[in-house]
Amino acid sequence: MSFASNPAFQGFRPTPESIPPPNVSLRHGDPTNGLPVNIHPLNPVAFVLRAALNYPDKLAIAHPDVRYPVFYSYGIWSQRIQNLAYALIQHGIMSGDRVAVIAPNSPMIAGPVSTVLTLVLPLTEAATEAHSGVLAARAIIAPINTRLTKSEVSYILEHSGAKLILVDDECIHLVKDTKIPLVVTNDSGRPGDPYEEFLSAGRRFSKERGWPGLEAEIDENAPAVLCYTSGTTGRPKGVITTLRGSYLAAIANAYESQINRDSTYLWVLPMFHAAGWTFPWSIVFAFATQITIRTVNFTRIWSHFLHSGVTHYCAAPTVQIGIVNDPAARQLPQPISAIIAGAAPTAHLISELEKKGINPVHVYGLTEVSGIFYIYPSWAKLLLEERAKLMARQGQSFATAQEVRVVLPAKDGNDDMLVDVPKDGKSVGEIITRGNIVMKEYFRDPEATRKAFRGGYFHSGDLAVMHPDGAVAIMDRSKDIIISGGENASSLAIEQELASHPHILEVSVVARSHPKWGERPMAFVILHKHHVKTWEGMHDKFTRELKQHARARLPGFACPEWVQIVEDLPKTSTGKILKTDLRKIVAKL
Amino acid sequence: MSFASNPAFQGFRPTPESIPPPNVSLRHGDPTNGLPVNIHPLNPVAFVLRAALNYPDKLAIAHPDVRYPVFYSYGIWSQRIQNLAYALIQHGIMSGDRVAVIAPNSPMIAGPVSTVLTLVLPLTEAATEAHSGVLAARAIIAPINTRLTKSEVSYILEHSGAKLILVDDECIHLVKDTKIPLVVTNDSGRPGDPYEEFLSAGRRFSKERGWPGLEAEIDENAPAVLCYTSGTTGRPKGVITTLRGSYLAAIANAYESQINRDSTYLWVLPMFHAAGWTFPWSIVFAFATQITIRTVNFTRIWSHFLHSGVTHYCAAPTVQIGIVNDPAARQLPQPISAIIAGAAPTAHLISELEKKGINPVHVYGLTEVSGIFYIYPSWAKLLLEERAKLMARQGQSFATAQEVRVVLPAKDGNDDMLVDVPKDGKSVGEIITRGNIVMKEYFRDPEATRKAFRGGYFHSGDLAVMHPDGAVAIMDRSKDIIISGGENASSLAIEQELASHPHILEVSVVARSHPKWGERPMAFVILHKHHVKTWEGMHDKFTRELKQHARARLPGFACPEWVQIVEDLPKTSTGKILKTDLRKIVAKL
Repeated sequence: MSFASNPAFQGFRPTPESIPPPNVSLRHGDPTNGLPVNIHPLNPVAFVLRAALNYPDKLAIAHPDVRYPVFYSYGIWSQRIQNLAYALIQHGIMSGDRVAVIAPNSPMIAGPVSTVLTLVLPLTEAATEAHSGVLAARAIIAPINTRLTKSEVSYILEHSGAKLILVDDECIHLVKDTKIPLVVTNDSGRPGDPYEEFLSAGRRFSKERGWPGLEAEIDENAPAVLCYTSGTTGRPKGVITTLRGSYLAAIANAYESQINRDSTYLWVLPMFHAAGWTFPWSIVFAFATQITIRTVNFTRIWSHFLHSGVTHYCAAPTVQIGIVNDPAARQLPQPISAIIAGAAPTAHLISELEKKGINPVHVYGLTEVSGIFYIYPSWAKLLLEERAKLMARQGQSFATAQEVRVVLPAKDGNDDMLVDVPKDGKSVGEIITRGNIVMKEYFRDPEATRKAFRGGYFHSGDLAVMHPDGAVAIMDRSKDIIISGGENASSLAIEQELASHPHILEVSVVARSHPKWGERPMAFVILHKHHVKTWEGMHDKFTRELKQHARARLPGFACPEWVQIVEDLPKTSTGKILKTDLRKIVAKL
Repeated sequence: MSFASNPAFQGFRPTPESIPPPNVSLRHGDPTNGLPVNIHPLNPVAFVLRAALNYPDKLAIAHPDVRYPVFYSYGIWSQRIQNLAYALIQHGIMSGDRVAVIAPNSPMIAGPVSTVLTLVLPLTEAATEAHSGVLAARAIIAPINTRLTKSEVSYILEHSGAKLILVDDECIHLVKDTKIPLVVTNDSGRPGDPYEEFLSAGRRFSKERGWPGLEAEIDENAPAVLCYTSGTTGRPKGVITTLRGSYLAAIANAYESQINRDSTYLWVLPMFHAAGWTFPWSIVFAFATQITIRTVNFTRIWSHFLHSGVTHYCAAPTVQIGIVNDPAARQLPQPISAIIAGAAPTAHLISELEKKGINPVHVYGLTEVSGIFYIYPSWAKLLLEERAKLMARQGQSFATAQEVRVVLPAKDGNDDMLVDVPKDGKSVGEIITRGNIVMKEYFRDPEATRKAFRGGYFHSGDLAVMHPDGAVAIMDRSKDIIISGGENASSLAIEQELASHPHILEVSVVARSHPKWGERPMAFVILHKHHVKTWEGMHDKFTRELKQHARARLPGFACPEWVQIVEDLPKTSTGKILKTDLRKIVAKL
């Protein structure tokens, strides 16, 4: 749905002053760049330029639910991005410098993340001659999780060596006392907003020189984004992805998710997480419209589902649970694709989504693998239970990925002889992959890089089986396996079976030490709101019932020894359950 | 529609002996190849491997309308392609050697063209050690137009230096007396067919070594395909495209055409033309099914439209005219996308296609630009006439292309200062472009390459305007412009207006010399079959009526001075009207 037919955005008109005059070319720098005629370096910035050329008046980004809503057309948006590039140069940002962004989903984070802050030419004397051969300065965008603590943010800022921070005023407490220069936004898009003033500084050069004044990066393997892992264990690691990787992953995601010029993407997933699973680029590549909302507010999400023509969004299962259970949830007028990652959706969740007209697609990825690396079709003709089982698997290799393998632990530490597990759906090995959508390296951590890249492959740390049809199914993170009486029990498999109990909303299982068996599973359970009352004061009875439910479905060693009903589970900002925190609780029992 | 639900292919079952055993990995050579973990060379062969891994049992290619129909699953097909690679190595084919293919659309041409005959390791002593570091041998596939004369084919075989010819027995007269070794196919897929015997020679190695025994090409910029231009003027030129170019163009075509795993592509376009506009790769990338038919038989095409679940096909307007006018034409049960190139579809053609449920998409390309380089959305809400006008334009730059420009003729021959025409829809310039989907070079013709690549851009020779919205509209090939009294008249614009006369089926306009005006337009017209009788014996009256029709729509200098009713127009095998032939007729008048 284009903005014109989207009732929520009927008021939108691009403000004329910002539309590039019709004869301005949007190509940047010297497009030939001394390269052969049949080569141009892969770079997601091309997406913004192409969108601005082909659809200058189309709504690129809407940020409606704030005091001063903003709506930018692709023409205006590309102009603002250009202004930002010149402003950064003016500020002294050079090739390879890191620019941190700390903000909830909003145009300020969307602009830099969508485009990658590349292609900047220092405004030195040399720069007054266009195409002067001065090497491109290229900033690396480093989006930081807004839900981290101040000390975690400080660690990342120091580790990344950020030279500038773009920060939302709500996040300013996270950067108090920093010596790094700040540009603050009030998220108003209006004159007087410090971020807008910063852009204004670039506007003068922008108007004068346009995109041709910004030198394009000639090396497609240059770093583009620095994202930190969620750090569920130890310090977060900085993941460097390249221009080439981002370009290829974004196109594949647009293809696999069937996002096109008629699509509207709602930002439920925080954009700072693994570069928004590459969707900031996929959306622009597709000429689609994106809507940013600052917080995950289910009622607001439903308002956009129902009134803004939303066609796509991404979220972890725990957020999807919140969506289907919101009182505003109802049958949708248009189908929506929900891209789910972080954990497998349960049959119950799939059914609840489908009842509303939401088509779930389960994908799997890591910060290290450009967001997402496998994806699966739907099995429209299968019955729910069968479909849910297939959808719970992680699937097969992604459109632009190299082959994904599941390999046995290296013998004698010799990773040059990687041996694939048989495709029997039973033998467990580690998921490994390589190629264009894998990260370039861990920033400033050659030791961790070497360890992750042993044998010429990226080692995911996820334990999985391979089914006869080539689909990979994760059993567990290596550290989440429960070793009970010498048997390996997959906490994920146990969770999947427990979740089939109709009274359970969410469940997480971790190992708890046991005098006889070494370890036994302990389940933490959130009851569905309709059943909280049912079991009030009868938690023991519920435990017995759930154990019985488990025994009917799982081998003895995988049945939970302990069950605890809780109101909440500890989660990362992206909705991943923090098993480390659960293990800490368990350790104190 | 998958083969299982496609009534025409219900009988298809992959023959068990050819299915790769479940534990065979389909990765080829050493996947790490000494490259960084985050790099794998772009190569369309990856599409076949991925399809065979993910959908081994899905119908890849059906060739139903022959004495011995064949149906290959992706598992079987990838196996046959592997056999072919080993057979070629056995035959002594080495890196960079050209293998010519002369065949109508059939599995024999589809296999090599879809996959590019790369990745072959010579079966020398060294090859007995897998991953031995022996440089990959890589054959270049050279598909040759089956409708050329024997002498034209001889020229191409000699110019290309082909070391082997795969030839259909119906085309064998084209290669009589050649000294180059031949492998003939009876297009039977059965034992005893010489092509099958040739494959058998490779099968032994194939079974033993599989894909891992075939070394992958490490240089993604290595040549992949050698296609000859249709040569409407002078000798055909050999166009070399690369692995990278093919990979990126194919993905973009799959995205833009919305081909996916549920699609069925019917081969109406000859596959030898500009590598089938990159669709041999797009189809496999998408896990779609392709159906090959040996000849353009409209009744047979309708039979597949109606009964084989066809969703996509490509063809020039003249073939589309044949399709809509066939007696078998009717309303389709499923929508079909028709990709049209070669000339702009008229409003009448668009309307006739749409009435049947066929959605036309007009695209533009050259052999030199990996098939296709712009593509346009449909304008569903506009009225037909308005929509036809917009669709007649060539549109905007393609998903993975660099910017397309329209530039003024170089001043003083200085092509380093390319000046864009204003975006006014009026100023005429030449279409130029560059980047990943442009050819690498003209084979063995550095002079023509240099001329085409002047200023760091590929010069198309097509004259066009750029509209304010950035859409390019071709006025003419430079040589087709009619200079009448010092005014430039676009033969295409004249044709477009004449074609709006309801009695006209097809029309072509060329310059004819005129004593007063220098040149004046002459129109060659095919009447619609329902109107041939209407004007029988009254061609003069029709000429007067058509001139009047023209005067109401065109400036005086662009009105045809002469009109000739003909039964046929001279055309290339891909349906492009041969204006050179018309000019020869005109010269003799």
